[in-house]
Amino acid sequence: MAKKSRKEHEAVGKKLQNLAQVVVKAARFRRDPNIEIPTRALSNSIYDEKRKIIMLGDAKQTRSFFNLSQAKKFMQTMLIASGCNDLNDQGKTTSIRDLFYHCKHTIEGTKENTFDEQSESDPIIEDLEVAIGSLREELGLFAENKGSMVGAMTIVDDGDTIDLRRMGSGGWSVPSIVEKDVIQFKKHETQFILLIEKAAIWKRFNEDRYWEKHKCLILHGGGQPPRGVRRLIYRLHNELKLPVYVLTDNDPWGYYIYSVVKQGSINLAFESARMAVPKARFIGMSSFDVQRFNISHSVTIALKDEDKSRAREIMNYPWFKEKEEWQKEIEQMLKSGVKMELESLSSKDFSFITETYLPEKMKRKLWLD
Amino acid sequence: MAKKSRKEHEAVGKKLQNLAQVVVKAARFRRDPNIEIPTRALSNSIYDEKRKIIMLGDAKQTRSFFNLSQAKKFMQTMLIASGCNDLNDQGKTTSIRDLFYHCKHTIEGTKENTFDEQSESDPIIEDLEVAIGSLREELGLFAENKGSMVGAMTIVDDGDTIDLRRMGSGGWSVPSIVEKDVIQFKKHETQFILLIEKAAIWKRFNEDRYWEKHKCLILHGGGQPPRGVRRLIYRLHNELKLPVYVLTDNDPWGYYIYSVVKQGSINLAFESARMAVPKARFIGMSSFDVQRFNISHSVTIALKDEDKSRAREIMNYPWFKEKEEWQKEIEQMLKSGVKMELESLSSKDFSFITETYLPEKMKRKLWLD
Repeated sequence: MAKKSRKEHEAVGKKLQNLAQVVVKAARFRRDPNIEIPTRALSNSIYDEKRKIIMLGDAKQTRSFFNLSQAKKFMQTMLIASGCNDLNDQGKTTSIRDLFYHCKHTIEGTKENTFDEQSESDPIIEDLEVAIGSLREELGLFAENKGSMVGAMTIVDDGDTIDLRRMGSGGWSVPSIVEKDVIQFKKHETQFILLIEKAAIWKRFNEDRYWEKHKCLILHGGGQPPRGVRRLIYRLHNELKLPVYVLTDNDPWGYYIYSVVKQGSINLAFESARMAVPKARFIGMSSFDVQRFNISHSVTIALKDEDKSRAREIMNYPWFKEKEEWQKEIEQMLKSGVKMELESLSSKDFSFITETYLPEKMKRKLWLD
Repeated sequence: MAKKSRKEHEAVGKKLQNLAQVVVKAARFRRDPNIEIPTRALSNSIYDEKRKIIMLGDAKQTRSFFNLSQAKKFMQTMLIASGCNDLNDQGKTTSIRDLFYHCKHTIEGTKENTFDEQSESDPIIEDLEVAIGSLREELGLFAENKGSMVGAMTIVDDGDTIDLRRMGSGGWSVPSIVEKDVIQFKKHETQFILLIEKAAIWKRFNEDRYWEKHKCLILHGGGQPPRGVRRLIYRLHNELKLPVYVLTDNDPWGYYIYSVVKQGSINLAFESARMAVPKARFIGMSSFDVQRFNISHSVTIALKDEDKSRAREIMNYPWFKEKEEWQKEIEQMLKSGVKMELESLSSKDFSFITETYLPEKMKRKLWLD
């Protein structure tokens, strides 16, 4: 069982009970109970120039019980909070789907359900996160595991000591919840963190023991990394002062993956401060690599119209706009009209990527900030 | 690096070189080189009543170089075989996408590519598997990892000793290739294997340490289990004589997942003999569980039309048709008109599934064969 420290446990419990107090107090004074929830929308996301991350603004909305259009949502918010409190009391973790079922029932004397679909409870969970200022992970709610890690480090996961140097071919599966009470970092000889976009490429790096030769941690997030992988990178970067490098395909999606790791996403703007790594470096495939590494044109892929418009959109993100190198990079992609996948390097040799390509890019500092 | 034993290494090499010999010989005798490939199609799949698995029939098709409509495919088959031979020579493993790129190039003096899309090379790999009688995994080709395992067993993964009792919250990520040269089973106190459909439910079982209390291995395959998970279950079942229980949702998809574990699939009929476990038992949610466990109707879900037709289809599979219990089970689903997810048990309590539901089903032998 994932044991929360008594302190964290109590902190979350207190926040949830404070929320309940709002209703108790309102009832006592015969007033309309209502709660304030920060607005999660593009209109309330701002790029913090100083911290270099996307943040949630100050706009709030009131959810009130005596308002007919809000009464059901108010009730649902309280049910979810109560479910999270049960979970916290039992010191357990569970999935967001499980919590949906835990809170779902037919209201006595009616045919009305508290929740009909999980699509109703998921946004309420996000509301609760911002309303009480506790991440989903602190509430004990997890998503599916996605991503693996191996490397020159020992960690403790839920009380078990795990040597990431001896994880075989499969690697350690990165859980959705990687807070300090679950995951602790121990002895390591690691000098940097390499986040690899794709599982298949990560396996090449693991099989070739790149992490051993280059003293690093290698991890992947199965495409766009999930919250667990992002939070883990954040913790490794900040607690152990390890630089972060992101290795992606040469396409707009690869730029975007890097962008989310670096600045956060609009969707999860309220979490940027605990997940974004503004100093992360892009070591992914560059549009200039065709010349640099003499890559055959037969393994490049023509850009589609949506690639082009996506590339132009990304060019105009404030954090890319201010950087000449990034403008050049994306211009070159549009000019050449092609994109490339990491796997295309296998046209040279299966281990070209681990033995020549990446070591050379690291040595020549061919990354983008 | 995944080290193949010299013997296995040589066996695969020999098979690939035998294939090449066909061409060499034909050229020497100035004849049309051609190879025979077993037909992979529904028409060539048969249910073996004795072995109780779906098998590939005897139908074969000839692929010939001097036939205009087959020349390109013949060339591609030889390229893939050659790529696999490179991989085997280097003792490496790689992804099927990587192999696509490895074999992709523009044919000298033309604008023609050997391969344009991976959708061309993937079926050729399957052709090669059946043609030379070596599984993709033996050729060193992997798919993405999907699935995790923990439990009362120590294994060796690629030379690293891994104690599956001490894998923390994330678990050991089951690799795509789990052949004997990569994965070996060591000391264990395991009495059975529990395959759980969903990752989120698996996490509940891990957090509650079900495997420790009940002396078992718990693993999930993230929905329909991938080849790696199926092959691992097969090996555990046959080498260690461990019974296999499959825990799924109560819906036609859950029945189908069980069916594939048990009898194999039409799509991969040529692999059934190395993956199917005809003795696997269905301990998944049954349509009779609503009464047995007094489950609230508010957490059941109405069957859709496609659920109903899928259920009727599955009822008629030869291996379900011959069993009265299975006929009753599926009839009850159709009669009640509802399906259920494993998560719905959380409406009682978060750990109802691990502390009451499954222990009772196991004790009362409420499984289907």
